[in-house]
Amino acid sequence: MASPSEFDIIQRYFSFSQDNTFPSASVSSSAQSIDSESQAIVAIGDDAAVLPVSENPLVIATDTLIEGVHFPYGFAAEAVASRAMGVNLSDFAAMGAKPRWLTMALSLPNADAEWLEKFSRQFEQQCKQYQVQLIGGDTTKGPLSISLTVLGETDSGQSQLSDSVRSQLAAIRPNLLDDKAICLRRNGAKAGDDIWLSGSLGKGAAALALISADDIDLHCSEADKTQLINSFNAPQPRLTLGAALLGLANSAIDISDGLMADAKHIADQSQVKIIIDGEALPINAALKNYSNQAQLQEWVLAGGDEYELLFTVPAAYRSVVQSLVEWLAVDCTNIGSVEAGRGVTLVGEAWQANNKSGYTHF
Amino acid sequence: MASPSEFDIIQRYFSFSQDNTFPSASVSSSAQSIDSESQAIVAIGDDAAVLPVSENPLVIATDTLIEGVHFPYGFAAEAVASRAMGVNLSDFAAMGAKPRWLTMALSLPNADAEWLEKFSRQFEQQCKQYQVQLIGGDTTKGPLSISLTVLGETDSGQSQLSDSVRSQLAAIRPNLLDDKAICLRRNGAKAGDDIWLSGSLGKGAAALALISADDIDLHCSEADKTQLINSFNAPQPRLTLGAALLGLANSAIDISDGLMADAKHIADQSQVKIIIDGEALPINAALKNYSNQAQLQEWVLAGGDEYELLFTVPAAYRSVVQSLVEWLAVDCTNIGSVEAGRGVTLVGEAWQANNKSGYTHF
Repeated sequence: MASPSEFDIIQRYFSFSQDNTFPSASVSSSAQSIDSESQAIVAIGDDAAVLPVSENPLVIATDTLIEGVHFPYGFAAEAVASRAMGVNLSDFAAMGAKPRWLTMALSLPNADAEWLEKFSRQFEQQCKQYQVQLIGGDTTKGPLSISLTVLGETDSGQSQLSDSVRSQLAAIRPNLLDDKAICLRRNGAKAGDDIWLSGSLGKGAAALALISADDIDLHCSEADKTQLINSFNAPQPRLTLGAALLGLANSAIDISDGLMADAKHIADQSQVKIIIDGEALPINAALKNYSNQAQLQEWVLAGGDEYELLFTVPAAYRSVVQSLVEWLAVDCTNIGSVEAGRGVTLVGEAWQANNKSGYTHF
Repeated sequence: MASPSEFDIIQRYFSFSQDNTFPSASVSSSAQSIDSESQAIVAIGDDAAVLPVSENPLVIATDTLIEGVHFPYGFAAEAVASRAMGVNLSDFAAMGAKPRWLTMALSLPNADAEWLEKFSRQFEQQCKQYQVQLIGGDTTKGPLSISLTVLGETDSGQSQLSDSVRSQLAAIRPNLLDDKAICLRRNGAKAGDDIWLSGSLGKGAAALALISADDIDLHCSEADKTQLINSFNAPQPRLTLGAALLGLANSAIDISDGLMADAKHIADQSQVKIIIDGEALPINAALKNYSNQAQLQEWVLAGGDEYELLFTVPAAYRSVVQSLVEWLAVDCTNIGSVEAGRGVTLVGEAWQANNKSGYTHF
């Protein structure tokens, strides 16, 4: 019998908080806009939780990285810091939220001064780069692992856009600029949406293969290899894109479990059918000459650790998305569409043999 | 060379967030009352962090329990759940704060359905008992560990007190009942304070010895043994006491690292000298007949896992503390005093040979 996935475990064992038995909280059925007068907002099952503690709701995401599971044994201390931060903030990007504070639970086999020096210096640099403050945590002896809980705020995020993009967005949703209590969700995709993807695919799994194995030949340059490994060591969360998609995208998720698996999360929670066009998928440039096509397709469809945003926007707003991503200088590709129905379907002749459902945690 | 302690590690490597380089946050120098207009409040170095997200500041505490470090291998699933909750909420008790929500990072070697069933049922029961809502988290494959981040609110907490106790408190601090933005800190102890301790000592270390070894004879009844083990499996956080001490206690901490070590945290952060009277220490009743006096004293002075509150109150308010703890039906003992100076001194002839500084994490 197959082991249950992380998603199964959460559904089966930890959904008790959603049954409204708590006087202080209930889960909103609203897909996007949050009524801060009501009691609770988003709980288990999205990239982050949202709490109604003030006019500007609080967003909270927790992610754990464990040596030997989420990064290889002997991974550089700096990379542990960068990767932990990037992975966690990617959840914030997927909510369109702005990170502000974090707590860190750090477990270390021993108090290695050199390791701690490198790790903490890089972590400090990351905190400055993303303007988040480390406010507390717990340091314990144990297998190397780092669990970050990031807190921040929902934010309409439109102030950084060009006047032209802002006016296009204002035409779509007139009140957006005043609406601070808003975030992106997994459950808002609608039939008629386009499916968009930021960046490129295959880089997470290819980098892991490069780091783990020495008998792989990607037929790419050393510069390409370095870029692949850097993207694994220090994922760049799509925070600016996520914030800019507020009010425009009907749904969003970050690709941490793999394209097909995360598309399925949107399809299931939105109760729609997602069609992905294999021929349209943006494969990372460093992998264009890799000869093992079956392996490449598996990396693209099922490889985790991409930390790109997958989001859906009504097809009528295609030109707005194009203006927006051009202004932000983030490559985004229209990779499919949303229909009535259920599940995820991959089309494109060369791809259908590889309809994988993504990385499973157990 | 001795390994650095957890406290050393935090001071040396993770205090960078306190240097006010963040435009959005600075650490308040105010010991107790929080100005919610200012930017930040309590960060690293107390039992919890406090954030100014609303009129009623948000309190956040993170704690990790790892199999083989914080609980024995093969520890019952229900006890993992109860212990994780109790340990984390004890930090809230030490801040005088009210827990409301939590996220859980759970790492499991495998997805054992029976274990998950027992664990999640007990965790749900604990969430209901303490009225906290599980709002999210991360489930991963790895060594068994559980890291909880609990969020809640500061609260003057006085509404549950008797009129008599309330009026005594109101005489001490007239504005207390209106002041919601308040919490207990480690850094507020003052010369002239009494030192108080809730409950009894020795139970944490004795229970661990019972669970880990089979050649120990405490000369106590089976009922006493069961009570010792229960207190280890399911620590009872002193939430009601902590909330009631707001505005009365000058400082507070929970005894998770051991009496002497945690007294030193208060002494160092408050820049005072703490005198503890060994003869006054309340030893757990189950340990009264234990013949190994050296071992017993070490358990009492340096044993962690007590989850009792150590707090200081001006000696002039001794009778108010007595009224308060009588009303709450929590045993509290006056175990010493605070003077000008530095450090922690143990007095009492039979105790001075055992001036241990508590459990060190590394």
